[in-house]
Amino acid sequence: MKKTKAFSAASATAPLALDTISRREPTAHDVAIDILFCGVCHSDLHTVRNEWSSIMPTVYPCVPGHEIVGRVTAVGSEVSGFKVGDAVGVGCIVDSDHDCPMCKAHVEQFCGNAVFTYNGPDKHLGGVTYGGYSESVVVDKRFVLKVPENLDLAGAAPLLCAGITTYSPIRRWGDIQGKKVGIVGLGGLGHMGVKFARAFGAHVAVFTTSPNKKDDALRLGAHEVILSKDPAEMQKHANSFDFILDTISADHDLNSYIHMLGLDGKLTLVGAPEKPMPVAPFGLLFGRKSVGGSLIGGIKETQEMLDFCGQHNITSDVEVIAMKQINEAYDRLLKSDVKYRFSIDMASLKSA
Amino acid sequence: MKKTKAFSAASATAPLALDTISRREPTAHDVAIDILFCGVCHSDLHTVRNEWSSIMPTVYPCVPGHEIVGRVTAVGSEVSGFKVGDAVGVGCIVDSDHDCPMCKAHVEQFCGNAVFTYNGPDKHLGGVTYGGYSESVVVDKRFVLKVPENLDLAGAAPLLCAGITTYSPIRRWGDIQGKKVGIVGLGGLGHMGVKFARAFGAHVAVFTTSPNKKDDALRLGAHEVILSKDPAEMQKHANSFDFILDTISADHDLNSYIHMLGLDGKLTLVGAPEKPMPVAPFGLLFGRKSVGGSLIGGIKETQEMLDFCGQHNITSDVEVIAMKQINEAYDRLLKSDVKYRFSIDMASLKSA
Repeated sequence: MKKTKAFSAASATAPLALDTISRREPTAHDVAIDILFCGVCHSDLHTVRNEWSSIMPTVYPCVPGHEIVGRVTAVGSEVSGFKVGDAVGVGCIVDSDHDCPMCKAHVEQFCGNAVFTYNGPDKHLGGVTYGGYSESVVVDKRFVLKVPENLDLAGAAPLLCAGITTYSPIRRWGDIQGKKVGIVGLGGLGHMGVKFARAFGAHVAVFTTSPNKKDDALRLGAHEVILSKDPAEMQKHANSFDFILDTISADHDLNSYIHMLGLDGKLTLVGAPEKPMPVAPFGLLFGRKSVGGSLIGGIKETQEMLDFCGQHNITSDVEVIAMKQINEAYDRLLKSDVKYRFSIDMASLKSA
Repeated sequence: MKKTKAFSAASATAPLALDTISRREPTAHDVAIDILFCGVCHSDLHTVRNEWSSIMPTVYPCVPGHEIVGRVTAVGSEVSGFKVGDAVGVGCIVDSDHDCPMCKAHVEQFCGNAVFTYNGPDKHLGGVTYGGYSESVVVDKRFVLKVPENLDLAGAAPLLCAGITTYSPIRRWGDIQGKKVGIVGLGGLGHMGVKFARAFGAHVAVFTTSPNKKDDALRLGAHEVILSKDPAEMQKHANSFDFILDTISADHDLNSYIHMLGLDGKLTLVGAPEKPMPVAPFGLLFGRKSVGGSLIGGIKETQEMLDFCGQHNITSDVEVIAMKQINEAYDRLLKSDVKYRFSIDMASLKSA
């Protein structure tokens, strides 16, 4: 075992602070990674504060972080395809059973034995897995992604969660070129949705409650911006969208967005509001509309997304922070005061 | 104009009673039809009692009925494809604008100028359209369907609404052969859903609250019956369905059925509960599930459905009643006391 520095939370109410954790010695199938950047996802904050206790209670100390980018420092004897020095990424999951129908369908995220990158059962060392707010990590080769070398690594880190979460439902919609696509919310997820929908050739509209986000939405690639609080503006777009990606995780009214969908239009939720959302049946019947959900993506699809980002030079717009700024960053995250994702420069942890 | 006998409601609280209404002289594009049978749809009752007043207030007198089967008695000079004596059907709509994107996409039911078979604006005679609880009707040829001569006409009448309503979402799901399909509710719509899903080669399970419906569900073509009130039985089928057709129009919990869906599974509502239905986002995210709606079908698809029924000898299970029994039939409808659709024998109106 190897000791490595990390930032952990000791309880649901404690701030994140410097800690020392253990990483396993790489097995024959493992890749050891020196972490360079780790994105800050809202899930990190939910988990640290035990806000998903009913689904996945948090075990402390908790080291969050599942938007990991780094370089390979060692590979096991059975590992091919990765070599020391390669830029690699690790996303939300680090293991699964490989045998179940979900794994065979390349959706390891739905495997009953999927192990999340943090707060999951660590079958090597016992206890729970520790995430990317740390100097290094050791991961099964099957869950290590290649990061195209042309990408800015600080901006590439959020691709591992925010990127795949938005890429997957847009890609799976079908041939979206020339279709009218709406993105609800312009945050960490939404701004990636805009970039991907635009890169796939869609006509992109951003729904937002904030008039001051308009210029930025257009800069990111949107063709138009719709103020969702303005009923007249909303009505102009009624029944016109082929696809809407809803990235809001706070409570909001789904029916007004369902009303925006055209014939056979689909709205896909990637944010996860805590409470059930009321859906009016008539709004679905007229126009054969539907509401669905999507959760990150499988490993194969995540690699496809990273390759696509390499070809189109797509990264997340990030604000790079030092590890010690993380508690302040969480406060700002709650106020949506970030454009559009924090990315922790892990060099700052090495010198901490 | 021609006078014809009909059963109408004079107000939301009046029983249906014998009346005389006018039908237009057939134009060059019209087909005149002698009505033989008319199915009794729950929409008839909703409209008669003005229960959809917020969406479509009822104009009185109201002559309901949109599951019409009869024989052609005259055709206009510009009508080809129909001749006197042909068995024909008329469903929920009798006109649309033919020019809009919806009409061009063969979904006239979503045309902004679609005219419903009853309680719609009658552009020929003024006032509202009168439905099939009558001796005869005159309809634009584009909304007249051919009924295969091998079908029992009393049982064919409900195909025009209950049939297409359930056929359309099952057919549009894709190649459903060998897939696991659930039908929620075994009434007028549900029993047709069972027949169609079975005819398309699916593995069919019926969800019902009534143990005493089991034998009938199996007789209609279901492979298995799941008691939705039994949590253990439900849990055995969790995450396993490719498609679920939900035919319940009363309030019910959607999330327990969403839980039954497998990866990328879809639940489609064809019943229309009045109140918004709470949908838990996490239930959609895990497994990429979706909830949609479907409303009858276009004219082209309705003809396709009737031809399919002719090939597979599919009709509705009906209880044939006389016109004067309609008020009693409505009372029984509210108690779900019918297997599975009332079909009015219009000969009984001629002699009334």
